[in-house]
Order: sequence, then structure tokens, then C-alpha cells
Amino acid sequence: MPYNRIFNFNAGPAALPLPVLEEIREGFLNFKGSGMSITEVSHRSTWFDDVINDAVERTKRLLNLDDRYSVLFLQGGASLQFALIPMNFIREGDTADYINTGTWSTKAIKEAEIQGINHSVVASSEDRNFSYIPKNISFNTHAVYAHITSNNTIKGTQWASFPDTGGAPLVADMSSDIMCRPIDMDKFGMVYAGAQKNIGPAGVCMVIIRNDLLERVPDTLPSMLKYTTYASKNSMYNTPPCFGVYTIQLVMKWLEDTIGGLDNMARLNEEKAGILYDFIDSGDFYSGTADTDSRSLMNVTFRLPSEDLEKRFVAEALDNKLGGLKGHRSVGGCRASIYNAATREGIETLVDFMKTFEKDNG
Amino acid sequence: MPYNRIFNFNAGPAALPLPVLEEIREGFLNFKGSGMSITEVSHRSTWFDDVINDAVERTKRLLNLDDRYSVLFLQGGASLQFALIPMNFIREGDTADYINTGTWSTKAIKEAEIQGINHSVVASSEDRNFSYIPKNISFNTHAVYAHITSNNTIKGTQWASFPDTGGAPLVADMSSDIMCRPIDMDKFGMVYAGAQKNIGPAGVCMVIIRNDLLERVPDTLPSMLKYTTYASKNSMYNTPPCFGVYTIQLVMKWLEDTIGGLDNMARLNEEKAGILYDFIDSGDFYSGTADTDSRSLMNVTFRLPSEDLEKRFVAEALDNKLGGLKGHRSVGGCRASIYNAATREGIETLVDFMKTFEKDNG
Repeated sequence: MPYNRIFNFNAGPAALPLPVLEEIREGFLNFKGSGMSITEVSHRSTWFDDVINDAVERTKRLLNLDDRYSVLFLQGGASLQFALIPMNFIREGDTADYINTGTWSTKAIKEAEIQGINHSVVASSEDRNFSYIPKNISFNTHAVYAHITSNNTIKGTQWASFPDTGGAPLVADMSSDIMCRPIDMDKFGMVYAGAQKNIGPAGVCMVIIRNDLLERVPDTLPSMLKYTTYASKNSMYNTPPCFGVYTIQLVMKWLEDTIGGLDNMARLNEEKAGILYDFIDSGDFYSGTADTDSRSLMNVTFRLPSEDLEKRFVAEALDNKLGGLKGHRSVGGCRASIYNAATREGIETLVDFMKTFEKDNG
Repeated sequence: MPYNRIFNFNAGPAALPLPVLEEIREGFLNFKGSGMSITEVSHRSTWFDDVINDAVERTKRLLNLDDRYSVLFLQGGASLQFALIPMNFIREGDTADYINTGTWSTKAIKEAEIQGINHSVVASSEDRNFSYIPKNISFNTHAVYAHITSNNTIKGTQWASFPDTGGAPLVADMSSDIMCRPIDMDKFGMVYAGAQKNIGPAGVCMVIIRNDLLERVPDTLPSMLKYTTYASKNSMYNTPPCFGVYTIQLVMKWLEDTIGGLDNMARLNEEKAGILYDFIDSGDFYSGTADTDSRSLMNVTFRLPSEDLEKRFVAEALDNKLGGLKGHRSVGGCRASIYNAATREGIETLVDFMKTFEKDNG
């Protein structure tokens, strides 16, 4: 691997496309002839205006967003949005629906509870350790929104298609699968994503919001906790996380210009995940933990015959320059996070290693 | 200048020490042999633990902090702290003091007002366009805290020494002068600083908090809005802004190992600001806007005889590789921000240019 890099299967922060990292490094001491690093350029300059506007425009093109939607950049990660969503959208007497598909959904629900927000958990897969995505859900037609987690990083599940709520717009935490495939935004009132899994570094959160929802935001909220503050100032009421926005811009450019858009990205992701799942299913040594119809294209979770073998698997993989294969500390096992930036070469190398490890230990 | 860089007098984001930028670039594709960029390394790894722990330890050594204080890394900038401070520390019946020394103090006060917090503005320099730091202030002895802005980026004023409140701990926004000099932390309950002026890139905010104040934090706050959440998890309840924390670590290392600590830094800053103020005071063409005893070591604000000349000054300076000299859009005029990373060479070059410009236009 160039620069003696490893194949990085971390769940987040995660691998970024190598050309993006190379471009950042190339201009790091003198950004586009400004004589300054991107970390030193004023956010009130044309240099940075070009960065943030291009990031927004490319995001809109990639997701086919029309003028009903605004693209914002916040801080605090998806975890801050868990609190801001009810704070911004729910008024006295309103109610919201939540679907619980794992650790992050549970945290989103907890933040609504802390605020004493009226809400219903209309579906959950907790009965089988969140190993599947619920079906045939009865939504409340009067809910202000229905919150889902589109991909469950820890449990390795993903919504294959998005449910019809019969009324309420979906609000989706897409931290771990945004831009992995095209989405039909007509179903969504808001999509948000901590950047550090699929589109950038930690420290910036993309928020795509349907503008009519901004009318719900109470005037009484602190300025930095209102989505309207960001929407009215192109995310620059105060200094934005410039380096993160810049990296997102480059990832969006890579998606458009190198990959060729989200249809291509989806096809590549299906191929990559297919290689790994097909191999896992071809024998008994490795076993997937998620229901087949709920499997994630982004996080492939699997077990080995024993915890001892899993520990050795992770350690020996790293010796072979395959990093980040340990499952989340809350569930154990193994996990290969194969976001957009994960290469087919990396996945084939991983499968080769898995074959060898099975031969030696099976 | 190496890499065809300019002398950068931007107010923030601002110049960073060149050795810091060079070290980031050097390891950007393979951080310390991890085979990953710092933007790709898991925050739950020993690599990142070493980064954040070293950033905290160096900060504690530089500021002589004992175990009464915690060093936290948040997001959302100082502007989010304006809201979090009353939210975390003020309970029913409590009151807080604020001193208004400019734009940022005004914003901090506004966020207390939005929340309907009991507060008093016990001093203000608004009567003379914030051109001085108030003296002989009567604080409320029962206030939970007294909020000040230690350096006023826009108005070019700075507290030369910190007031004795007679009781309440100071809570200080030090975004534009943290680490510019030693401080006596005994006076402070909390010090906070958006990193993008003196210690790092935009997108990370250092919060130094006296632990006993954490006992005031209400359980009913959303998780990401409670200082206790950050204090109990070494700022890693969720993914921290890793790149920003890493840059801060390198700036703290530069301050300790290259500069030799905050006594040295203060002496250098006094020398640097002295060169510029002495020149401004030596004639009539340039005039400082702040009262002499309230002048900032960090932001030197000055006017020329006309707005037309100011516009030409800023443009011609940039042609001479002296960037960011325009005053804040809310006040006009000129401003040279000379934070820790500004070099004596840059300031001498600026003074040479100012002499030439005066000769050509005076």
C-alpha cells in the first residue's frame, strides 16, 4: 500500500478516499495560492466561501435535492442532533415516532425522554438483540416526525428501503451510510450525519433539512441550538468547522467526479459487501450476526467459533495490515466497516486472510 | 517565506506555528506508523488516547493547573458556551454578573437573556464604543459567576490584569488570548476558548472548568449540553473533533518545547505588540483606536486618515504578502491580529510596509 498504509476497517473515524487525503496534504501549507493553510484561512474570505458553497452544491446534486431543502454544517456530532431534533420541532401537544434499531436509536430516544417530549417507540428490534430491521410498522399519522437510524453501525443492519409513514416525514440519522446510495428525499424531513464514517473527519455534522420544518423552530431557543441560525447564515453564524467542511467538499468532489455519482457508488458498495457476505455464507467457520434481509452494506458483523479465536483473528489481521476489525466493545465479535472509501482490493485482501486464518485454525 | 506563504494577520481562523503545520502534513497519510491519517484513526485507540491525554497534560502544565480543574474539548465554538454556561451553572433564584466589553460579551449576555436567566451587567464600556476596559467594578457578592471577555478581538482591548470579584469565580471567554501569557487560575471558575485564534483550527473549543462547579449541572439537561458529560468521559462521550484536538496538542508542544512556556510567550508577545504600537504612536498618520492602558497584545486596531486610504492600505499590504489587515466588518478601520504564532519578522515587515505606505500617501 502507498505510504505504508493499512487497509482500514474502522467503524468511525474511518477510512477516507486516498486522493482526498493527498489533496489535503498537497495544499496544507498553502491552500490554493492563498499563502495560508486551510486551517488558517478566514471563514469570511472568498477562499472559504468557495469551499462551503461547493460542498453544498455538490451535496444537492448528488442527492437530487431541490430548493425545498437546505444543507447545513453543524458541530457536536449526531449525538447533539438527538437533542436538537425534538427541541426544534416539537411544540406543546405534539408527538414524535421513534423506531429503535440499536444503540444509536436508543440514544436518540433517550434524548427525547430527557426533554419530556411526547413520543412513541412504534417499532423495535430489541427482542432479538437488534439483529433485524422491523417490518409492517404502524406509524402515528399525526406525529411531527418519525425518527429512524438508517444504518446501525454496531449491529450491522441497514434499512434496505425506507418505510411509508402515511404522513409524518422521516428524520433519519444516516451517520454511517449517507451517500452510500441514492435516496428518495421526498420521504424525508431531515437527514443528518456525523461526517466521520462516510464523508469526512470527526467534528462536523451534515444536516439536510426541509425548509418548511424550520417554521417550527421556537424563538426561545439559544442561538446555537436553533437550526434556523444555521439556515439563515449558510452555516456561518459563528466560525464553522472549516477543515471538516473542506474535507467534505473534497469527498463530494470525489463522489461526483471520480466515482460518477451515487448510482455508481451503490453498485460498488453492493459488489464490495457481496464479496464479503458470500464468503461468510460459504462455510461454517464465520457466521454473520444480522438477519440476511437486514444486512448492512457498510458494517459487516460476524462471529468466529470462539472469543479466543476472534481475539487472535483481530490481532493477526492487523499484523497483515488489515486494521479495525474488532466488533464494538458493547457486542464483541468482529466487524469490517466497508464505507464508500473502502476499496475492493482491501476487501479481497481481507477475504484472502480470512481463508488462511480458517485453514490454520478451523 | 517558505512554501510561498504570506504573513497572516487574520483575526481567526488565524496563523498557526509553521512547525505545527509541517508536522501535521508530514504524518497526514500515515500517523505515527498507524498506517492511517489522523483523520482516520479511531478515537477509541491508544493512538488517539495518547493525543488527547498529552493535550490535556500539556495544557495543565502550561497553565499550572492543579487537580481542581478539568480540561475538556467541546464543539460549537465559544458561541455555544455562551448558552451552556448559564444552562449548566444557574439554578432557580441564582444570579450571574456580566461585564460588557464588546461584540462577544454582548453575545454572551444575549444568550443569558434568551434563557431568562437572572443577571446583571455590572460594567460596560459601550459608552465609548468599547474602546477601554472598565475599572472599579462593583460585583454582586452572591453571583454564581462573573463573566468577562479577556480580549476583545474586534475592539482591540484586553484586560491587563483580572479583577477581584470579592466572591464569584470569573468565567472568561479567552478565545483570542488563551495561552498568550500565564494566568492566575485561582480567580477563575471556568476559562474557555474557541481554538481558531490562538491554539488550533476552527471546530474545537477548549473548556477549563473547576470541578466543584460541575456539581451545579442539572441532570435534566440533554447529554451533549452538560459539562459533566465531557468531564466524566475525558471529552469522549461521543466522537470528539479529533483533528482539532491533535492540532491543539501540537500547539501545546510547541509552546512548551520550542517557546519554553507562557512566561517566555508573554515576553515575546509584549515585544511584538510593542514594535507595532510604538510605531503607530510615533506619528500622526496611523492612530490606535483603543485606550492606551486597555490595548490588546493580540489585536492591534488602528485607523488611517481616511477610509479610502484604509482600503488601499489593506489591498497594497496583501500585494506585499501581508494578509488579513482589514478591520472587522462591524467597525471598519485596520487590524493586525498578532497571536502567539505571529512572528517578529512578520511584524517588522508590516512596520516597514506601513512606513513606505505613509511616505507614499502621507
